[in-house]
Amino acid sequence: MIRAGIIGSTGYAGQELVRILLGHKDVEIKWYGSRSYIDQAYASVFQNMFQLVPDICKGEDLEQLCEEVDVVFTATPQGLCSSLVSENVLSKVKVIDLSADFRIKDVDTYEKWYGIKHQSPQFIKEAVYGLCEVNREKIKKARLIANPGCYPTCSFLSIYPLAKAGLIDMKSVIVDAKSGTSGAGRGAKVANLYCEVNESIKAYGVATHRHTPEIEEQLSYASGQEAVINFTPHLVPMNRGILVTAYANLVKDVTEEEIRKIYEDAYKEEQFVRFLNAGVCPETRWVEGSNYVDVNVKVDERTHRVIMMGAMDNLVKGAAGQAVQNMNLLFGLPETEGLLMPPVFP
Amino acid sequence: MIRAGIIGSTGYAGQELVRILLGHKDVEIKWYGSRSYIDQAYASVFQNMFQLVPDICKGEDLEQLCEEVDVVFTATPQGLCSSLVSENVLSKVKVIDLSADFRIKDVDTYEKWYGIKHQSPQFIKEAVYGLCEVNREKIKKARLIANPGCYPTCSFLSIYPLAKAGLIDMKSVIVDAKSGTSGAGRGAKVANLYCEVNESIKAYGVATHRHTPEIEEQLSYASGQEAVINFTPHLVPMNRGILVTAYANLVKDVTEEEIRKIYEDAYKEEQFVRFLNAGVCPETRWVEGSNYVDVNVKVDERTHRVIMMGAMDNLVKGAAGQAVQNMNLLFGLPETEGLLMPPVFP
Amino acid sequence: MIRAGIIGSTGYAGQELVRILLGHKDVEIKWYGSRSYIDQAYASVFQNMFQLVPDICKGEDLEQLCEEVDVVFTATPQGLCSSLVSENVLSKVKVIDLSADFRIKDVDTYEKWYGIKHQSPQFIKEAVYGLCEVNREKIKKARLIANPGCYPTCSFLSIYPLAKAGLIDMKSVIVDAKSGTSGAGRGAKVANLYCEVNESIKAYGVATHRHTPEIEEQLSYASGQEAVINFTPHLVPMNRGILVTAYANLVKDVTEEEIRKIYEDAYKEEQFVRFLNAGVCPETRWVEGSNYVDVNVKVDERTHRVIMMGAMDNLVKGAAGQAVQNMNLLFGLPETEGLLMPPVFP
Amino acid sequence: MIRAGIIGSTGYAGQELVRILLGHKDVEIKWYGSRSYIDQAYASVFQNMFQLVPDICKGEDLEQLCEEVDVVFTATPQGLCSSLVSENVLSKVKVIDLSADFRIKDVDTYEKWYGIKHQSPQFIKEAVYGLCEVNREKIKKARLIANPGCYPTCSFLSIYPLAKAGLIDMKSVIVDAKSGTSGAGRGAKVANLYCEVNESIKAYGVATHRHTPEIEEQLSYASGQEAVINFTPHLVPMNRGILVTAYANLVKDVTEEEIRKIYEDAYKEEQFVRFLNAGVCPETRWVEGSNYVDVNVKVDERTHRVIMMGAMDNLVKGAAGQAVQNMNLLFGLPETEGLLMPPVFP
Repeated sequence: MIRAGIIGSTGYAGQELVRILLGHKDVEIKWYGSRSYIDQAYASVFQNMFQLVPDICKGEDLEQLCEEVDVVFTATPQGLCSSLVSENVLSKVKVIDLSADFRIKDVDTYEKWYGIKHQSPQFIKEAVYGLCEVNREKIKKARLIANPGCYPTCSFLSIYPLAKAGLIDMKSVIVDAKSGTSGAGRGAKVANLYCEVNESIKAYGVATHRHTPEIEEQLSYASGQEAVINFTPHLVPMNRGILVTAYANLVKDVTEEEIRKIYEDAYKEEQFVRFLNAGVCPETRWVEGSNYVDVNVKVDERTHRVIMMGAMDNLVKGAAGQAVQNMNLLFGLPETEGLLMPPVFP
Repeated sequence: MIRAGIIGSTGYAGQELVRILLGHKDVEIKWYGSRSYIDQAYASVFQNMFQLVPDICKGEDLEQLCEEVDVVFTATPQGLCSSLVSENVLSKVKVIDLSADFRIKDVDTYEKWYGIKHQSPQFIKEAVYGLCEVNREKIKKARLIANPGCYPTCSFLSIYPLAKAGLIDMKSVIVDAKSGTSGAGRGAKVANLYCEVNESIKAYGVATHRHTPEIEEQLSYASGQEAVINFTPHLVPMNRGILVTAYANLVKDVTEEEIRKIYEDAYKEEQFVRFLNAGVCPETRWVEGSNYVDVNVKVDERTHRVIMMGAMDNLVKGAAGQAVQNMNLLFGLPETEGLLMPPVFP
Repeated sequence: MIRAGIIGSTGYAGQELVRILLGHKDVEIKWYGSRSYIDQAYASVFQNMFQLVPDICKGEDLEQLCEEVDVVFTATPQGLCSSLVSENVLSKVKVIDLSADFRIKDVDTYEKWYGIKHQSPQFIKEAVYGLCEVNREKIKKARLIANPGCYPTCSFLSIYPLAKAGLIDMKSVIVDAKSGTSGAGRGAKVANLYCEVNESIKAYGVATHRHTPEIEEQLSYASGQEAVINFTPHLVPMNRGILVTAYANLVKDVTEEEIRKIYEDAYKEEQFVRFLNAGVCPETRWVEGSNYVDVNVKVDERTHRVIMMGAMDNLVKGAAGQAVQNMNLLFGLPETEGLLMPPVFP
Repeated sequence: MIRAGIIGSTGYAGQELVRILLGHKDVEIKWYGSRSYIDQAYASVFQNMFQLVPDICKGEDLEQLCEEVDVVFTATPQGLCSSLVSENVLSKVKVIDLSADFRIKDVDTYEKWYGIKHQSPQFIKEAVYGLCEVNREKIKKARLIANPGCYPTCSFLSIYPLAKAGLIDMKSVIVDAKSGTSGAGRGAKVANLYCEVNESIKAYGVATHRHTPEIEEQLSYASGQEAVINFTPHLVPMNRGILVTAYANLVKDVTEEEIRKIYEDAYKEEQFVRFLNAGVCPETRWVEGSNYVDVNVKVDERTHRVIMMGAMDNLVKGAAGQAVQNMNLLFGLPETEGLLMPPVFP
């Protein structure tokens, strides 16, 4: 049994990790870390876990924790993992960080977009960006995984085949993304109250959202060119789900059939990326609760653009599910172990 | 492997059966029956099943079906199962009927409340009411299971311990129930459109809802007295979930502690009924996607009444999950097989 | 022009007062009071008022305020109005208190259920309970109005005709009520976050909710008997609306037609109470944004009970609209002035 | 009093017209036309109108209707108005068509995108596109108004100032739009059921939506160049509201301040277009139930693009409200008459 510890287990992503790991036959959760609910029963914070999780929430002492477990998940705000991680920790446990601390290779870019000083830049280089579909082999050998952001995962997987194929202008990419409200976290803020979110939609972080450089970096690797994009997230009145609608200029004449072939080839071996039939638009309801990303593409001949679409559950493939997928790779398990639950509808 | 067939697989309950059975290690679905989508790919009706279910929808020929499978689930409107079932069928397969056809022992009561003629009253007597927590032993030996209704399951399990203990006046019981909209089915009706249901709540079927005699019959068995109740269902703007708030007059002085002891004793061996801690009200969000029923009770000394509360997922414990629980009993499997998925939140 | 001041203008009820008064041809709002947003533009707190309200939020100084206006609305938490009101204030302005401070005539009952000491019990006697349909004449002559609670307004108007007619057992009344989330206020609490409320329903305050004695007191006046009731509120995933489903034992044989006649007579002169046609259940969507209460009744001959139902908008008839209705009476205006906006659907 | 008739009064837009006209002091509705509910009480179709509208639904006989009223609103599917209108009708009444029949000047474009043959192309030329902010003077003299589509209204008003100023590349415009579900109409379709729409978001009509040529035509007029755009609508789980996020390449260096000045100048006289303060993103909740469009703009210097945003209520400014605004202009009334209701929040 792999012994796991979760720092930040009482946020939405942390709780989703608990849900998934409870159904994973090779893992035992040994540590439910929480800043806000120390010494309280985990099941009193999340009543869905009543009688399923008897544990009490503990603190966030990573040095102690790494003596007791094999893998640590940090589902915490930016800056915490980088302030806790150390050579001693990494020599004892695998660390899968769900925050952005180790996602961006250029520390200046990180510090500029996030507005905080990086606490352990010495580990950035060795950290592996945990997008399994792209970095599978590197992940298997890593000690420290930077679990990708929710928007970047969905954006990247929607665009990746065409970026890699060199068919789109990497300076023309526009990503218009829409997220359910769990992405905003469980903090008590007026803006996230039911009556403020319900029956409304808005853009936020326009031209300034922190996931922009992460998407740009990964698209640049994939295309071998510098990607400069517009990324606009929106808040949608629903609990879960991210939908990406991305636009790019085609750099040469290509038919929809040719483009579909590129996507099929890119994802034919992937178990969690479902390239949909022609004409079927991804919808977040069809992936809810699962680790799948549904992707499709449409060529607009009138405008010589391509519209790339993706839908996934922000808490699963966009956070906890992808973290478990990374864990499976780190420990030599089948990549899909514990992650094959079908989407829940309605 | 148990071979299963589903008649009515393209309704909400049928699709939930598919979701649950896909995760059941001892079952293989051999037949996706549907009246509306014959010859269409199942995954084109429910895109969540894309790449998970390659099958094509077939018709509803029970005679043919029973040659190919070990168990048939009928997740169809009232009247269909009773018109299809036969001695030949029952001699070959187990039938688990999710409709109301075999739930009510008195055929006149059935015909009066449902307004249709029963097509095979000869099987009513042998059919076992599939409330596993009460009829576990009988279920194991049955050929034909009447899977309980969603409202009756939640209402009954909320009230059962006090009915059985003889502590409440069985003519004073009032059940005020609230259901998510999946309970209304997938038929295309104006009343179930998004804009008609969203941002509203209403009662319906006041004093006339068909689940009334089913609840009364089961409560009468449990208490040994004739139960005559008020049952009022309400439609709530959410996908899943049933909440029951039930009221009854206490017939003798009893403390909340004594009553809690009765519930604890009644459910201490049950894996799917969670009797909550004192003061914690059941909420549908804590059981969503799971087979759990959360139950609690409160004594109001001012009015000498007891308030009994239950929450469950209408599609799982209220339909497909309970059907699989019955199947497990019918085939000698552990009762919880395939049903231990934790509730999905948020 | 009547000059109005609002203390607590940045809560949901306060903002609804602003919306309604902006459309009232005889009123000018002179004072937007707020504890949390002093010196901020009102329209920056509620962007719907951009370009409609240029004012800046002021504090809650009732002594100063009463020099500048003719009527003060206090849309504040319990205890504030009673701590601010004085003979000086009441000699200068009319006060309409949307909190519970002056609703309950017995100060011990108030202090027991609300758990706070009453700051100005000397004004309780003269305060008039502002349920216009019942106390219309007294209201016209009052200085201090206790604007009724949201649940009590809907509960009382649903039950009132039968209570007054002496046809129901006043110790058998059970009120099962359901409210949208705006009733929980605009405070930043985890329990009211979008993801916590959405896709769920729960009871709360079971047997202990503070609106219980208010409903009992008014029903006792109406019936001339001591009413002792069960009141159970529920939180519903929608912004606005209260639905009441109330049950009572009939004390004599009476037909549905006779009971309908009693309701018709009770409400035939009322412009804001709509007694629906036989068989039509009230739904909150049909009253949203308006001052109407939709009421209906159903006799259940099987149980000798009557089911009384009401639906209204908790922020309008349950708070701000009723406050304006009271203001109209206080100042000799037509009772419906500024309140005839049709319900907004969908 | 202006006598009005509504053909298609039992759809969502038709009902919204009724709601608005009930509050319009100069209008009396004489004819509630409906195809589906002839001879039924209007208030039985929309219970919010109980006791407010005593009328019975009539048919859709435009020749008869034009004898009885001064203005006819056609809130019907594409093709109906053009099949009913005639010189006789237009000689007697003003016609405001909420469908697309007369919006597009080139009949081939109309027939290609809508897939139907135009029934009265002879009236296309004289029809005035009823976007009051642009065509105010022409509207005043018209007989036949083509009321703009919901998406085009919001898209155009978001982009118009920069299109007119010649600052954006009219072939680079991408409109990513999001709409509440009332935009899908009140027809009974599985895809619009509560459980299908709730908790999900999807794109639809990608690269093929019929509003594309309407937006292009109006942007071409405004800019004096041929606009060729990408338009992608999305379905959002909410009743009302449209949000537009539009992107375009800047054709010269310009600061955000300069661009803000252009918007301010464009809309400073407009009562229904609110240009928001810098940094404030439009949100549909802030315009719900009102005729306002909230607009804002953001320059992204990294990508040399501008992001233009707009929010409005699709049923008001996007349909019924704009129709009444047009009616006011046609009859010489103040343009805002009956349309100044503040947005309803929450």
